[in-house]
Amino acid sequence: MSPRSSVEPVPVAEIGAFDHECDVLVVGFGCAGAAAAFEAARAGADVLVLERASGPGGSSAQSGGELYLGGGTEVQKACGFDDDPDNMYAYLVKALGPNADTAKIRLYCDGSVEHFEWFRECGVTFNPSFYDQPTWMPMSEDGLMWLGENSWPYNTVARPVPRGHRPAASGFGGAVLMEKLSAAATAAGAVTHVDTVASNLVLDADGRVAGLVARKYGERVTYRARRAVVLTTGGFVDNEEMLADHAPVLLGHGKVSDGLDDGSGIRMAAAIGAATRRMGVVEIALTALPAMVCRGMLVDGLGRRFLNEDVYPGHWSVHAVRDQPGPYWTIIDEEGYESVPEADRWGVLPKYAAETLAELEESLGMPPGALEATVETYNRHAAKGEDPYFHKDPKWLRPLKPPFAAIDPGAGFFGGTGGPASGASGFTLGGLHTTADGEVLNNSGEPVPGLYAAGRAASGMHGEGYVSGTSLGDGTFFGRRAGRAAAASTNKETA
Amino acid sequence: MSPRSSVEPVPVAEIGAFDHECDVLVVGFGCAGAAAAFEAARAGADVLVLERASGPGGSSAQSGGELYLGGGTEVQKACGFDDDPDNMYAYLVKALGPNADTAKIRLYCDGSVEHFEWFRECGVTFNPSFYDQPTWMPMSEDGLMWLGENSWPYNTVARPVPRGHRPAASGFGGAVLMEKLSAAATAAGAVTHVDTVASNLVLDADGRVAGLVARKYGERVTYRARRAVVLTTGGFVDNEEMLADHAPVLLGHGKVSDGLDDGSGIRMAAAIGAATRRMGVVEIALTALPAMVCRGMLVDGLGRRFLNEDVYPGHWSVHAVRDQPGPYWTIIDEEGYESVPEADRWGVLPKYAAETLAELEESLGMPPGALEATVETYNRHAAKGEDPYFHKDPKWLRPLKPPFAAIDPGAGFFGGTGGPASGASGFTLGGLHTTADGEVLNNSGEPVPGLYAAGRAASGMHGEGYVSGTSLGDGTFFGRRAGRAAAASTNKETA
Repeated sequence: MSPRSSVEPVPVAEIGAFDHECDVLVVGFGCAGAAAAFEAARAGADVLVLERASGPGGSSAQSGGELYLGGGTEVQKACGFDDDPDNMYAYLVKALGPNADTAKIRLYCDGSVEHFEWFRECGVTFNPSFYDQPTWMPMSEDGLMWLGENSWPYNTVARPVPRGHRPAASGFGGAVLMEKLSAAATAAGAVTHVDTVASNLVLDADGRVAGLVARKYGERVTYRARRAVVLTTGGFVDNEEMLADHAPVLLGHGKVSDGLDDGSGIRMAAAIGAATRRMGVVEIALTALPAMVCRGMLVDGLGRRFLNEDVYPGHWSVHAVRDQPGPYWTIIDEEGYESVPEADRWGVLPKYAAETLAELEESLGMPPGALEATVETYNRHAAKGEDPYFHKDPKWLRPLKPPFAAIDPGAGFFGGTGGPASGASGFTLGGLHTTADGEVLNNSGEPVPGLYAAGRAASGMHGEGYVSGTSLGDGTFFGRRAGRAAAASTNKETA
Repeated sequence: MSPRSSVEPVPVAEIGAFDHECDVLVVGFGCAGAAAAFEAARAGADVLVLERASGPGGSSAQSGGELYLGGGTEVQKACGFDDDPDNMYAYLVKALGPNADTAKIRLYCDGSVEHFEWFRECGVTFNPSFYDQPTWMPMSEDGLMWLGENSWPYNTVARPVPRGHRPAASGFGGAVLMEKLSAAATAAGAVTHVDTVASNLVLDADGRVAGLVARKYGERVTYRARRAVVLTTGGFVDNEEMLADHAPVLLGHGKVSDGLDDGSGIRMAAAIGAATRRMGVVEIALTALPAMVCRGMLVDGLGRRFLNEDVYPGHWSVHAVRDQPGPYWTIIDEEGYESVPEADRWGVLPKYAAETLAELEESLGMPPGALEATVETYNRHAAKGEDPYFHKDPKWLRPLKPPFAAIDPGAGFFGGTGGPASGASGFTLGGLHTTADGEVLNNSGEPVPGLYAAGRAASGMHGEGYVSGTSLGDGTFFGRRAGRAAAASTNKETA
């Protein structure tokens, strides 16, 4: 669909005979679609999944595959961590806030162990081993990692326990995850139509969603959904007009997606009066290496630190791009750089190196004395094991000493191949306003009959904050709930 | 209306006989409504204006009354300033950005002198005198003031010329302005129904807006609009649920409004599939005094400056509340404080005073050395007339010396009576997506037949930025355009 192609609803009277019929029509076969299709099919519904690509997977399949799970999973126990739902809840409300959706988070935490077991039932395996270093993603097959739980101030509101669960895979685990989830949905009975692009919802005379119109190889195809339509079409980072209208902070940055997150589901639903929520909230990843910023510091264009560098790295990334003047730099000394094992450096090399900070700050175009002042303050406190500004864990605090280096996120990882020129990439977190059962709400706060949504087409648990694994996590968790609710949905015409 | 009362559309078939009929139905009698009603009536349309309060004015009447106008108005000329539309355009695109609406700004600048004359035609007078000090609002009757044009970086993209036009009034000029504009609309022929709360749009069988349903003293009243409905219902700062969903940064802060900016027009239109834009963008005013922060500095909770203090004060206010850790403090020395004439101090008193910055920063709960480092850096550069970090005008640069004081925005002006406890108040800038003629667009980018919007119910010229006078300014300018277009709108049923 083009960014402004028509998403206006089509009255059922204009359709005539539908080309296909089902009970529950799921639109999009990423993680939320797979979860919804699985549960709807298992509940006995006749389920069709439409996917615009030539196979299932969506942006989920291109992700790292991390799942934010806890409350006492088998992997957590095997790695020696004691977690519980209340502890997980306390962390997530803080980490996904301010203004996180506490009701959704409560359900998510209370159901997390069961949800973990569901992944295993779908055939996903998790190795009972723990990766204990700061990173975007371990290059190992370890099944558990930190996602900010051990950093200030999060470690003051909840007992620090790692909850980043990783499907057994080296590096990006999204493909393995989606292979299992899509197979599970198919095994449960869901039928998939690929190369099929949904374009307009179909409304019956009472305003109930009764199906949709799609295109396949340029031909119009119509689908009747006897019970409900479930939109799991993803976010809108690939739609430049929607970004300009709702989340312009991402303009000019890289896109974390499969290239098809065009917001079409959000637009189709908004066209029939569905409400959206927090359309401006985004997640961003700077191509800076957590192992290096923890050992040194991350500074803005004026040479200032702005967060403890050991938080979940998306947190300093968003804070930088949204709130601080650029460009951003990792500042590290030779000792810190050398202490990162070469395999963990991801090919990251200094752009500038200098014996003095005065030289370095001049190379970086900062005000004279800016970086000198920052490092002098940092070193003075670090010598005492303190970081009174941002409270980085004392284990990372050590006065930096010459020679110094500055690393440019714009250079990317592994030589920069395919990285965003701006040094940052992101995706959108805002979307349709839904209940915990995935019902899409209208602007009067009432469910739109026959319409459900989950995944990044919906506004999920997130307030302003994000941690890895909460998109695949809430997409599948609330996708399952939406699938069950859609299967139980009753169209009065057929009831 | 309660925050989640029903805004779902009503089919015309359910109405039967309408209680009232007109050509153009304007909803809300603030500045945008007055402008739209005036032009629609002058174009020959039979115009009705609905106002939920007991008289016209809305939030506009409670505002300072500043109008952002330029391009060479009589007041600018009389005060000796040489402006032109291109110069005004260059400033506004920067000041209202990033991502300002350049097409709307272009029209606004090209039409600004004519628009100024329209205000005079409506009976608004402007004194040809210039107030040359930094302030939120002069306590004089001067007709012209700076609104950030003379500060970095704005003074590098456009020739600095003041464009804050003020109706002749001492202090808040909004009441005078609205008295003139509402009288002009009435004189042009518009009829007003007060105490009338619009609740739902009425749609004909083709999806065209045909009128609306309202309530007066609890009774349902129906209105048929033969040509169009113009929504000028204001923003949504008074709707806590909408704030939580779209602009949570304002939760907990004061509200710049008449208490009735509940977003009802935005909701009514979204309920029929209208598109919104930039719902998260807000304007914020910290109750810190520009005359004092220019002479000293504004710092965040970590003792850091973050902007040149001589920018438009809403700019440091938004940047503080949105991006910096609080609390915020004006830091000034005795010499600076005393140099502000007592009449211009607005009753602002230091909360803490100290001979040393070490004492002061301890009182403020900042990291040891934080404020000392900030002031040392500031003073070192100020001694040379430089501010390499933020480029404050050299005329404000002077090394600060003991004794020092810290002023708390939470204490408010004039003893704090009625001020926001948080030290900040704001309003919303996001709203319905409209064309330059006020046509409300749907989610497919096409106009919704029969529906127009202007003022803060619409997303206007603004990207992320704001300056005073651009709400009254774009509300009236695009309100006039919407009124003209609505009057020319043709309902095919009546054509």
